[in-house]
Amino acid sequence: MLTSMPLITLLTDFGTRDSYVGEVKGTLLRLAPDATLVDISHDITPGDAGAGAYILSRIWHRFPAGTLHLVVVDPGVGSARAALAGQAAGHWFVGPDNGVLTPLLRHGEVVLVELPTPPDAAPTFHARDLFAPAAASLIQGAELTSLGPRLARAPTLLSTATPHYEAKSLVGEVIYVDHFGNLISNIAEEKIRNHATVEVEGMDLGPVRRTFGDVATGALLAYVGSGGTLEIAVRDGSASRRLGIGTGGRVRVWLG
Amino acid sequence: MLTSMPLITLLTDFGTRDSYVGEVKGTLLRLAPDATLVDISHDITPGDAGAGAYILSRIWHRFPAGTLHLVVVDPGVGSARAALAGQAAGHWFVGPDNGVLTPLLRHGEVVLVELPTPPDAAPTFHARDLFAPAAASLIQGAELTSLGPRLARAPTLLSTATPHYEAKSLVGEVIYVDHFGNLISNIAEEKIRNHATVEVEGMDLGPVRRTFGDVATGALLAYVGSGGTLEIAVRDGSASRRLGIGTGGRVRVWLG
Amino acid sequence: MLTSMPLITLLTDFGTRDSYVGEVKGTLLRLAPDATLVDISHDITPGDAGAGAYILSRIWHRFPAGTLHLVVVDPGVGSARAALAGQAAGHWFVGPDNGVLTPLLRHGEVVLVELPTPPDAAPTFHARDLFAPAAASLIQGAELTSLGPRLARAPTLLSTATPHYEAKSLVGEVIYVDHFGNLISNIAEEKIRNHATVEVEGMDLGPVRRTFGDVATGALLAYVGSGGTLEIAVRDGSASRRLGIGTGGRVRVWLG
Repeated sequence: MLTSMPLITLLTDFGTRDSYVGEVKGTLLRLAPDATLVDISHDITPGDAGAGAYILSRIWHRFPAGTLHLVVVDPGVGSARAALAGQAAGHWFVGPDNGVLTPLLRHGEVVLVELPTPPDAAPTFHARDLFAPAAASLIQGAELTSLGPRLARAPTLLSTATPHYEAKSLVGEVIYVDHFGNLISNIAEEKIRNHATVEVEGMDLGPVRRTFGDVATGALLAYVGSGGTLEIAVRDGSASRRLGIGTGGRVRVWLG
Repeated sequence: MLTSMPLITLLTDFGTRDSYVGEVKGTLLRLAPDATLVDISHDITPGDAGAGAYILSRIWHRFPAGTLHLVVVDPGVGSARAALAGQAAGHWFVGPDNGVLTPLLRHGEVVLVELPTPPDAAPTFHARDLFAPAAASLIQGAELTSLGPRLARAPTLLSTATPHYEAKSLVGEVIYVDHFGNLISNIAEEKIRNHATVEVEGMDLGPVRRTFGDVATGALLAYVGSGGTLEIAVRDGSASRRLGIGTGGRVRVWLG
Repeated sequence: MLTSMPLITLLTDFGTRDSYVGEVKGTLLRLAPDATLVDISHDITPGDAGAGAYILSRIWHRFPAGTLHLVVVDPGVGSARAALAGQAAGHWFVGPDNGVLTPLLRHGEVVLVELPTPPDAAPTFHARDLFAPAAASLIQGAELTSLGPRLARAPTLLSTATPHYEAKSLVGEVIYVDHFGNLISNIAEEKIRNHATVEVEGMDLGPVRRTFGDVATGALLAYVGSGGTLEIAVRDGSASRRLGIGTGGRVRVWLG
């Protein structure tokens, strides 16, 4: 049996117009020629660690154990924020200590080291000069603890808004808007009872549906999305544009 | 001789900002670790099965036989539309039965099965929970007919507008506008005689040219494009913006 | 030890919506099944050979020797401009003779051949019909000189603006604006003395900083960027939007 090639996923806010993604890919493939690189996204809103963490939370566990996730949304690059490498649930990861790694850091037992900054690293491009070399070492079998000292304190975690109950309703909020304009809330599937109805910013959306085709073209609907939480969409349209709602928008489920 | 790695091409309207492409890639690589993934595009206009079919028509036959094409432009996801897997001309494909697969379905003898929906599939994300697992099975050698029953009826095909003759001219239309703003028509190269001249929305473009450099910068031209049909462009500019014309715009060739 | 797979990087202005990138990838993988393809960018401004050359200058040397760089920003496609294949510093490259290859052509001893146009090549798509087949041949071991005759004249090189001294200052210009809105100048790190201060379009930016975190959120700063030249940025913002400055904008360093 062939051993399949080690996987490195790439999740950044570098955009796709510039040289940054290419410089990181070249560095990885120069140092770890057998790695297979997988683009997740380079279109995270610049500096939005929360959006990066949300995307990471949805993708990492889809990959096989042994995958390394290189996650760089790093507005504090070159400052005192720590650079991390770690392992959780059989997956490896490297990235800045600003919360973007929260989904992996919250996942059970985590081994975490602080990566020293190489003396010749560009202060504004640690993805290329610090994180990529660390990723290449790990994917080629280096011990995590050979890369740096254990992190001496708790890593930075992003706090997630938690829905709360108000009388017979559960009130949550929009935590991500996708490129279709679908509004993804923080209300988990298991909190929604049969016969629940949904209200967004005061507008009644009726019962929770199964999929887009359950309503007419152009109609609003609420349904449990593929990430396991309640979402709001317009069939064949954009709920975000229709409702003028983005991240933080209020979503209420009447538990019926 | 090494057997090269099995190829899976990815053509979707998922955009590149969200987690959807990454979730599909992770699922494919978890289930078929030796597959090589090839991004074709994730920037099809959301829900535009016609644009997806046009892109597919241009790319599939460029790949080696044995390639699997995962094509998901699927506004009817989770509804009664069938999910298909098939083989045509030595290529494999999976995708929804909404016409987006037309170029492969029209290609000679096609073996086609209907994929059952796994009970735990998210109703809004069949790419991840239904099409990717089917693709992984096929690329690893599963029999097509082991994945589901033969499709009991004809698959959905997109009808293509056909140019028609009017006196000494052939009248077609714009079927795709590319990101340069070039207008791609449905008038095939072999229908165009020597000395033909071209008219678009009533404007005379003169004779059919060979390439952009045959006219001055900023000038309009008609030429046979790389897809084998007549195209309209502005040298170093956008014909779509200049003429205010998009899909459906009328193109006339005076056969001379 | 496994020989790692030959790498082909892809740098174009084809965008990611259309079939062009996919047609090139299919052609490469059909003709060179063992190649590993690496997307650098397909989002170069259409026809901007200068921007393509800048990106190429930053990425090529990050890749291991033996990598082939397919670089197609080619507004003159199908005209009399030559098509080139060459080797420099252990790297292979193919692309049009319009200056986009300048960073490799300037790199020491270069072996350069002119690629003949295959008779059936689409005049508007040499990337697919001329450059990709040449790249596939080279990556599979063909001799460079078997692909075409030596270029009988000097290749086209883009001239780069050089900073000049004015009294106690060095005056350069913005040569690239990245997607964060950072302004990248042509003033090399080694020209900047300690205690230098920076002025852009008449506005004083103070001393050269190390990284974004050295100023307050929303403040302008000048620093030596990861490409080794002076850059202007707004912390957590866009200097290009803030200052209304793009390529060609004037940057002055007071040498102090």
